Amino acid sequence: MNRLQWSSLDQVARRDALRRPVQDVAAATREAVAALLADVRQRGDVALREITARFDQVALETFEVSEAEFALAETRVDPALKDAMAEAAARITAFHRAGMTQPYAVETAPGVVCERMIRPIRRVGLYVPAGTAPLPSTALMLGIPAQLAQCNEVVMCTPPRRDGSADPAVLVAARLTGVSRVLKLGGAQAIAAMAFGTETIGKCDKLFGPGNSYVTEAKQQVARSGSVAIDMPAGPSEVLVIADAGANAAFVAADLLSQAEHGPDSQVLLISDDATLLANVEAEIETQLASLSRADTARQALSGSRLILVDSLAQAFAISNDYAPEHLILALRDPRAWLHQVQVAGSVFLGDFTPEALGDYCSGTNHVLPTNGAAAAYSGVSVASFQNFVSVQSASRDGIGAIGACAVTLARAEGLDAHANAVVLRLEAVA
Amino acid sequence: MNRLQWSSLDQVARRDALRRPVQDVAAATREAVAALLADVRQRGDVALREITARFDQVALETFEVSEAEFALAETRVDPALKDAMAEAAARITAFHRAGMTQPYAVETAPGVVCERMIRPIRRVGLYVPAGTAPLPSTALMLGIPAQLAQCNEVVMCTPPRRDGSADPAVLVAARLTGVSRVLKLGGAQAIAAMAFGTETIGKCDKLFGPGNSYVTEAKQQVARSGSVAIDMPAGPSEVLVIADAGANAAFVAADLLSQAEHGPDSQVLLISDDATLLANVEAEIETQLASLSRADTARQALSGSRLILVDSLAQAFAISNDYAPEHLILALRDPRAWLHQVQVAGSVFLGDFTPEALGDYCSGTNHVLPTNGAAAAYSGVSVASFQNFVSVQSASRDGIGAIGACAVTLARAEGLDAHANAVVLRLEAVA
Repeated sequence: MNRLQWSSLDQVARRDALRRPVQDVAAATREAVAALLADVRQRGDVALREITARFDQVALETFEVSEAEFALAETRVDPALKDAMAEAAARITAFHRAGMTQPYAVETAPGVVCERMIRPIRRVGLYVPAGTAPLPSTALMLGIPAQLAQCNEVVMCTPPRRDGSADPAVLVAARLTGVSRVLKLGGAQAIAAMAFGTETIGKCDKLFGPGNSYVTEAKQQVARSGSVAIDMPAGPSEVLVIADAGANAAFVAADLLSQAEHGPDSQVLLISDDATLLANVEAEIETQLASLSRADTARQALSGSRLILVDSLAQAFAISNDYAPEHLILALRDPRAWLHQVQVAGSVFLGDFTPEALGDYCSGTNHVLPTNGAAAAYSGVSVASFQNFVSVQSASRDGIGAIGACAVTLARAEGLDAHANAVVLRLEAVA
Repeated sequence: MNRLQWSSLDQVARRDALRRPVQDVAAATREAVAALLADVRQRGDVALREITARFDQVALETFEVSEAEFALAETRVDPALKDAMAEAAARITAFHRAGMTQPYAVETAPGVVCERMIRPIRRVGLYVPAGTAPLPSTALMLGIPAQLAQCNEVVMCTPPRRDGSADPAVLVAARLTGVSRVLKLGGAQAIAAMAFGTETIGKCDKLFGPGNSYVTEAKQQVARSGSVAIDMPAGPSEVLVIADAGANAAFVAADLLSQAEHGPDSQVLLISDDATLLANVEAEIETQLASLSRADTARQALSGSRLILVDSLAQAFAISNDYAPEHLILALRDPRAWLHQVQVAGSVFLGDFTPEALGDYCSGTNHVLPTNGAAAAYSGVSVASFQNFVSVQSASRDGIGAIGACAVTLARAEGLDAHANAVVLRLEAVA
């Protein structure tokens, strides 16, 4: 791990310290994804079958999970895991429902009513990865807000296993959220299917969910093509921890490791105003690594990580706001007192007993969050991500009488005579 | 204008009928914009001066509007226009403020509090075009929500005039909204300056505003590069009118023309279940065209427009939802009774006395809206467009005791041992 003392760094070194691993997608990946998207767009289901045979090594006639497979999945999932998913789903639902945007109306002038109307995005596509392990938690995090938004059509794609089945836990999670249609499709081909539609898969309006570099690149390419909207740009997962002298080194080390185990490109930053804490955390990391199943992955991620000593906690928050972390853990004695200093972050975890893992699974917040600095201008997934907000205005005869002259003056100032005329005609009619 | 009878069209003809003008950016435009962006990124202000001299034909030493120029602008703008801008600003402010998202907190389990915290996007850039005419109304539509969100830094770019000054009405509008920093920069170079930053212009986190094809292409390119977020993909402005037999043909014609005068690529659709109304509107358009200053532009736009006869109004709404219009006018006898049928639109105008021009200028709603079908998954600009929503969670010792086991079960099911360990360590500490 790289230890840095912030006050001794010049501007260039500071910028380097906050630089994320280079995200350049290899030209080969870009081209492979582009070719695959074009193939699915042209040949539809036939292309999907060929690509799935090639990459997932399974021959599927249909991609859609049958009722029989859903039923079988229910019998295959450990009841304790089912209970945990149901428990998590209840809290995720409670938190997301309470934050739903409400319609409203304002009479902005006598006889002029302006409103915000809320409509679900009609057709949404959810991607649930199953790379090193299937992620039923992501099925919950995407399925629940889609259900609360009441999207007309919700389709979920998740990669097939070698035996042609889908992961049972993902299927149980999908059903918990009311997602009825699950397709056994993975990678860029799943993104292509949902973005363009095929003979059997309807075209979606917006796509959601994390994925590997192929999925991410495919989402970017379909978004650029204007075919479909996407939830947010994506990059590797990351955490920034701000810890004071009173923090528990073992807890902090465990939090850094739970980020590091995600993948070799995961980003882990620890900032403290206490050198002893930094040293203790580093020692704890070594101890805990010994017993981790994914220690190799975590070690690779940690090799690019940074422990930063700052002069003051205020400096730590300034650094964090510039870094724009996906996850921000405040391992501080009075974390709430510092919350006003958080300007930019995806999700914040307060105090010693709120590890990131709670938010990843079951506190109630969403774990699909902006990474790679996107938190500067993007927010995590919420019900609003699945909705459109439509403004509505209604002027009575009195209403246009009240505000028509204002519109005419502005239209003429902008040289838009037909705009002015559309108002004048009405004003004459109501005069 | 093209008259179509919907029930007589096959699927291909229907798709053609709703097809927008081809938006393919010429390869030459794409490359020119890319070169210009790279130049500004590398050479900063020096490049901006050269490009401004070339395209705007004015030599500017500094781009920033001075206090003296703001003061002079106040004296140059017609008091009636000033009053109209202030009146419009008051209604826009009232409507936007009433719709602001609120923070909230939910105790999702005993000792577990999940919250949504709201933070302004720190640095935003607003583009106000001044092509065929300057658009002070756009300065209001972007500046007011930025101000309500309390963004830390707000910069507005608008093209310089040949004499090196900025349009006085735009400056007065900017000041009305509290935007203090206005730069005389237009086109793709303005987008580059705000996206990358230069010696004198700070890099922005998110860019907003309409523009010509160069501005639009520049926004797309900087968004793709990951440098900055943008408000939404953009295309030519468009209106869809659904009119019944009782609609006023002169009013409908005036509304279609006020859209058509925006530009030759503007899209105009009229759908009715009454053939007589369609014929009357077409005749009215010819009459009104005679007296319009921008008749040539409007004629070009109308040549690509469509009058569609449907069997029923329900069919009209189905077509509209698939088209996803930026502006939707319901010239119906009881428009509110039909509102539930509107699933997809940017902004809706109800009844005979609510021309689109009211929303363009001063009803209170925002006129920066999704075009080109983007309304299927994007909403118009609101205060939320200038904010980030940050989730926060806090678990007490009791809290992790209540939900920790759930997180451990899910983490282990996903093979993420370090996640489980981060929770187990705490559970042991509180046991």
